[in-house]
This record gives sequence, structure tokens and C-alpha cells, in this order.
Amino acid sequence: MADRVRVLKVKQSVLANNDKRAEEFRAELKEKGIFMINLMSSPGSGKTTLLVNLINRLKKDLRIGVMEADMDASVDAETILSKTGARVIQLNTSGECHLDAKMTSEGFHGLDAQGLDLVILENIGNLVCPAEFDTGAAMNLVLLSVPEGDDKPLKYPLMFRRGDAFVFTKMDARVVFDFDVDKAKERILRLNPNAVFFPVSAKLDEGVDTLAEYLLARVREYKEK
Amino acid sequence: MADRVRVLKVKQSVLANNDKRAEEFRAELKEKGIFMINLMSSPGSGKTTLLVNLINRLKKDLRIGVMEADMDASVDAETILSKTGARVIQLNTSGECHLDAKMTSEGFHGLDAQGLDLVILENIGNLVCPAEFDTGAAMNLVLLSVPEGDDKPLKYPLMFRRGDAFVFTKMDARVVFDFDVDKAKERILRLNPNAVFFPVSAKLDEGVDTLAEYLLARVREYKEK
Repeated sequence: MADRVRVLKVKQSVLANNDKRAEEFRAELKEKGIFMINLMSSPGSGKTTLLVNLINRLKKDLRIGVMEADMDASVDAETILSKTGARVIQLNTSGECHLDAKMTSEGFHGLDAQGLDLVILENIGNLVCPAEFDTGAAMNLVLLSVPEGDDKPLKYPLMFRRGDAFVFTKMDARVVFDFDVDKAKERILRLNPNAVFFPVSAKLDEGVDTLAEYLLARVREYKEK
Repeated sequence: MADRVRVLKVKQSVLANNDKRAEEFRAELKEKGIFMINLMSSPGSGKTTLLVNLINRLKKDLRIGVMEADMDASVDAETILSKTGARVIQLNTSGECHLDAKMTSEGFHGLDAQGLDLVILENIGNLVCPAEFDTGAAMNLVLLSVPEGDDKPLKYPLMFRRGDAFVFTKMDARVVFDFDVDKAKERILRLNPNAVFFPVSAKLDEGVDTLAEYLLARVREYKEK
């Protein structure tokens, strides 16, 4: 047996390009003055919990709508509605592993976004497919939870290249998991030199204020331009 | 605002069916007496760690080969090779989020599987796409880690329907995470009445022996039939 591992490329045909549709939808959002965030991560990284905490901090300043994408459940939308009162719509993808610009814009038009300042799309829990599709969002917010490990940027590089801001969630779990924050940052910055980082613990209520302030500033900046 | 959440179906066209190819590949494996396991989970659920522990327990009884699938890294294959000495090949999918039967059989033929008893495919870390494609494996082994939460079967039902055996990993992390094992089992059994379960902690070295014995019995049973 050789010392080095053999590498074999196995490749399928690529998916259709949806960049044009995403640009049109982004222009529509800009015209309406609505900032859209595309929230992405692995399953179970804490997207819904973070969303509840963020909305409850931001709702005095911003009118917020949420699009919850899941393959065929609606538990997250129920949670958002009951815990924040935000305007919410559940998008079911019937098995698709991502939202593209068409699906997102259909969801947006189903949400009744009249008068909103901020719309957050909670994408399907997945580090692969959602990264491949521009949804038309003004910002890609990517979560990486401590239990997943600081090596994820090495293994899912496209997601970490496509993110604008990164949230390290479940920081309290560092008592049981090795997770080197500096190493994670360095690996992301190598893919994405403009990345910004927010370590948070929803359980200890740490870091969420800082993230909320950052997002509020970004929304205001967007609406002023 | 209504009390109930609105549900909108947004759907893309389905992917091509690869069932025929999977059946042909399964027949080839059967003829060669090679048991194949398709290992699936979210990113960071502990697939590689479990694999290292399993191989080191099983290698005295079985000749084992490993196919490591990743989008464009080879760190896992290097780990398997250095920590177990097993015959290993890295499959790079160039961005694809799953392995289908064609890709798996190409990988298998690249592995030089002559004389092996057991081949394990470590699929891409993803709870969505890999569940959609029969790889030709004799067994789908699905991991769910404690930090991901016991609600994942509700949100990724296809994966939990397609699994044959389920491993709850990082059981030691229950000191910081709520994870109701009975609830997780019940949710999986509702989708999949024949499911069997193995709670493990690689850190505490608990539960891995039981899983290894189960797999050994399954491989022997398969080879005798």
C-alpha cells in the first residue's frame, strides 16, 4: 500500500445557473428597501435559536419577516411565531436541499413583505447545496457550532467562501469539545479575507447583543444608500 | 396575522433515478462476498472518529476497505490511513453533495477491493442529498450526534427512513446538551419501524464494542447466505 492516499475525481453534471434571477430579485429588494439575510449552517447548529434571540433584540428597531425553509416540517416556523411574533412563512422544498433565487422570491412574495425592513431566510440545514445558489440576499450569515469542529472550513470550503459574516454558536460547549476559535477564523480567512466573526452562546446569553448591533448597523447602512 | 403558519410548496424538478445501477452494483458486491456500509450524517457528527474506532476493533476479524467522500479535501482519508492502516481511497465529488451508485462503484473499482470482506463508504456530511441516492450498499448506517438535537428525525425524515441502523454519537456531551434518547428513538421508529440503535461515546470509549459486534455479525450473516 502506498503512503499517500489515492484521490479519484467523481463528478456529476452541474446544476443550472440562477445568478440572473438572483440579481433581479436583489434589485427588487433594494428598490423596496428590504435587507435580506440568508442564514445557513449544518443541521442542528442553532439557526432557529439564534433567530429567536436576534429577532427579540431587533424587533423594537426593525420590522422583521422570516422565511423558514424545511423539507417538509413546519416546527421552526411555529417556534419563530410563538416566541417572537414575527411575520413568518414556512417554505417546504419537498426534499430539495437548498433554496434557489426563484424559490426564495416566491417565498418572499408569499410572505406579504409590505413595510418590512429585514427579511431573514432560514435555509435548509446543509453545508453543501445552499452555498451553490445565490438567493438574492444582501448578506449570507453562516453558523458553525462548536461541536461540529474547527475543521469544517477545510471540508466545506464553498460555504465558507460564500459567507459574509460567521457566527460560532454553542460557545459554552467548549467545556466538552475542542474547538480552536483562532484556527477556525484563520481557516475561514484563508478562503474569505473579508469575513467577520461573532462567537455566541445562546445558553449563556453571550455575544448575541454584539451580533444584533452589527446587523442593525448593516440594515441602516443599506437603507440609507 | 393568522395564528397558523402559512405553508408554501416550492419545488424543483427531481433528480435522475439511479436505482437500477445501484441494484447491479449490489449484485456485484454480493457475488464478490463484500459487505458495503454507507455511513451518513451531518457534518461534524463524528463519522471519521467512529470509523477509526470501529476499524481498529474489526480489523483482526475482517479485511476492511474505506472510501472517503469529500468535496475537495483528503484529510479524512489521511486520518483513516494513519490511524488504522486500512486500505483507503479518497473520492472527491467536486462540489456534489452526495454519492450516487455510479460514483460509488467507480470509487469501489478504484479501491482495489480484491479480498476484502467489508467496504465502508463515508458519504459527504449532509442529512439531505445522500439519503436520496441508493449507493448499492448492504446497510445504511446513520449517525446523529447529541449536540444536533433529538428533533432531527422530524426535519430530515428521508434520512431516518433510509437508515438501517442508527448511532447516537457524542453521548458524553449530554452534560451540556438536552438530548432525549427515548424521544429520538421514538421519532425514528415512527418513520422506520425496523431501526436499531447504538448510543456511543468515542471520548469515553463506550458503546463502540457493541456496535462492532453487531456489524461483525451482520457481515458474517451476509457472507454465509
